Amino acid sequence: MLTQTQGSFELLTNETAIALIQKLELLDRDATLTCRKIGDDTLHYVFHVTDNVTNKGVIIKQAVPYAKVLGESWPLTLKRAAIEVDALLTFGSYCPEYIPKVYYVDKQLAITIMEDLSHVKIARTGLIEGESYPLISQHIGEYAAKTLFYTSDYYLEPSTKKEVARAFTNPELCKITESFVFNGPFFEHTPTNYEVELSEIVETLWNDHELKLEVAKLKKIFMSEQEALLHGDLHTGHILASESKTKVIAPEFAFYGPIGFDTGHFIANLLFQAVTREEADQEIILSHIQTFWSTFTGTYSTLWNNESRDEFKNIDGLLSYVLQKAKTDSFGFAGWELIRRASDLSHVIDLDGIANIGQRINVKSNALILGTHLVKNRSTLDIPTVIELVKQVTRSSYSTL
Amino acid sequence: MLTQTQGSFELLTNETAIALIQKLELLDRDATLTCRKIGDDTLHYVFHVTDNVTNKGVIIKQAVPYAKVLGESWPLTLKRAAIEVDALLTFGSYCPEYIPKVYYVDKQLAITIMEDLSHVKIARTGLIEGESYPLISQHIGEYAAKTLFYTSDYYLEPSTKKEVARAFTNPELCKITESFVFNGPFFEHTPTNYEVELSEIVETLWNDHELKLEVAKLKKIFMSEQEALLHGDLHTGHILASESKTKVIAPEFAFYGPIGFDTGHFIANLLFQAVTREEADQEIILSHIQTFWSTFTGTYSTLWNNESRDEFKNIDGLLSYVLQKAKTDSFGFAGWELIRRASDLSHVIDLDGIANIGQRINVKSNALILGTHLVKNRSTLDIPTVIELVKQVTRSSYSTL
Repeated sequence: MLTQTQGSFELLTNETAIALIQKLELLDRDATLTCRKIGDDTLHYVFHVTDNVTNKGVIIKQAVPYAKVLGESWPLTLKRAAIEVDALLTFGSYCPEYIPKVYYVDKQLAITIMEDLSHVKIARTGLIEGESYPLISQHIGEYAAKTLFYTSDYYLEPSTKKEVARAFTNPELCKITESFVFNGPFFEHTPTNYEVELSEIVETLWNDHELKLEVAKLKKIFMSEQEALLHGDLHTGHILASESKTKVIAPEFAFYGPIGFDTGHFIANLLFQAVTREEADQEIILSHIQTFWSTFTGTYSTLWNNESRDEFKNIDGLLSYVLQKAKTDSFGFAGWELIRRASDLSHVIDLDGIANIGQRINVKSNALILGTHLVKNRSTLDIPTVIELVKQVTRSSYSTL
Repeated sequence: MLTQTQGSFELLTNETAIALIQKLELLDRDATLTCRKIGDDTLHYVFHVTDNVTNKGVIIKQAVPYAKVLGESWPLTLKRAAIEVDALLTFGSYCPEYIPKVYYVDKQLAITIMEDLSHVKIARTGLIEGESYPLISQHIGEYAAKTLFYTSDYYLEPSTKKEVARAFTNPELCKITESFVFNGPFFEHTPTNYEVELSEIVETLWNDHELKLEVAKLKKIFMSEQEALLHGDLHTGHILASESKTKVIAPEFAFYGPIGFDTGHFIANLLFQAVTREEADQEIILSHIQTFWSTFTGTYSTLWNNESRDEFKNIDGLLSYVLQKAKTDSFGFAGWELIRRASDLSHVIDLDGIANIGQRINVKSNALILGTHLVKNRSTLDIPTVIELVKQVTRSSYSTL
């Protein structure tokens, strides 16, 4: 991997992207290259440069110095590009099978050149289209267990962990989460953020004191607990998947935080699918939730038993205490994600993409009910209970809860 | 305050200490100065330089590049001197009344020159001699509330807090705590560390599975929860006290950690006194515990209500949740401190200074019993119950617990 840190910032164009690949000889030096801008998300531009003959390609990602969805009034430094690539390299060292290869980094220009995975679909899109992705839950379970164990105090020497945590201090991106995920829905919501048909249930939630208190506790956990290096934004839009392959991308929100924040966000994203699907198609999603959690806990436990260096590792009950906390936090963060995505500024296409208004309102109401139950009862729930809840909420009247 | 960062490391002598004060003109330029080495603790040399005529003085503290009690085989960088002075300045900005003034810093030579407090006694020594220090618990309660509130996410903008936490990353000194406080007693203990008469009770504790699991949880809290900037070693040997004045010194273990670690250590140190004293002299100590906790929670609550910037600050129940957690953690860390100081390598003079062997064994046994109860039942205890427990343990047979 090459690293470049010279020069001043400028945005790539299709032409300069091609010139860069030619200069670096990352594709055949004599090839004719084509470049398409394939991504233009909140915080980045993404270019796909291909060899016209062989079709081989690379991906170029460049961070922009502001968060577009938040307006240029929310400036961001380009440090996040460095954090993203450092997280890709860290995670890649523990589970290369789930992380794109990095070929080149220019921290000054906030450019990362990576493995071409453009043939692999974004999991959120595929799931909405009805793909089943038989291995996604097993793969993400392994990914989560490996990244969250190997970066914790239970594997790393605690002094090393502190240095890694220091390097991944990420105040700018954490602030986005603190403001938009935790504070926004309660303190900056406007009725324009949700359908008028949801007003009653949403307003009940915004005035639900117990819910607010539990979300305040979750925010405290997010802000203060440094259990492991998180992806920080592990939703299905940041997972590329096929029948056989799964890759996790875009860890620019990476920071040391509570492990349930990552696992909870993946669960929430499966739950978005679970609440949108008819009974027959729902089963595969529910079994993904089950497989994800059993793979995560199984792999984490194996790693703990075989590789933990903590002196207390063999104390009966410690591993299950750590996993129980992860589960409780997961349900809390997942539940809150269901609520805010169904009712706030940051919508999610799984729900908003439902064209039929009646169906969409119904699905969002279900997400809100399920989410509230998860947040409030997170410490006593387990996976089978959550699956049963999903079935109850989506297949019968709300009053059963 | 002057800051100097040039030159290479060398240890001060009485002569070079005087020369330094003369060069800096920190005392009268024409004065004849005397220097005495007054401290030679685990990690530092401390010099007291005085003007022979006026008796005005300053304190010079210099860190040494190893931990003496641990042997030269445990090398330490001099970064801790920088952390100590940065913590003094940070704490001093929030409560100057409880922190010595800093006059000069040389980070290269690990030298800090401070206010002369040599006329104020170390609180541990005074307490052992029977001093009552009527204001110590109120002062330390205020000190703890102010330092632990003003450095938390509930006062600092969370991005700022993350930068401060990064600056106070303190892996070397935290490692001493992790190794000697948490791991040592269970995994590196030798029978030579405690009196043979304590063998039975100590060995029972070392084989107490529930205790080990609870200590493992406390260690996890210590290693991963960044609630506020802690002193990190808040025992009565690091408090200078008189009838009217209280100063907290030596925060070289400062790091972002769980607030109950500081408050718990102060409580533990009061408990050392409580278990050593006769009934009549015990009351003042028990009332110090009560005053400390009510001052801490009262001041913290006032600061929270008047100065918190967190959006959730007015959610009923959040403040009491934060204080309840601090209390639970305090009792856990305090209990463990009682146990390890009564039975492990790191003795404490309050207990070890008891000349009569029978009395010493009795007091240490009481500390062990009380400590175990605190660790195991920390989440359900409150201050009146703990005070009742102290009375029961010290005034009747153990079997009442």
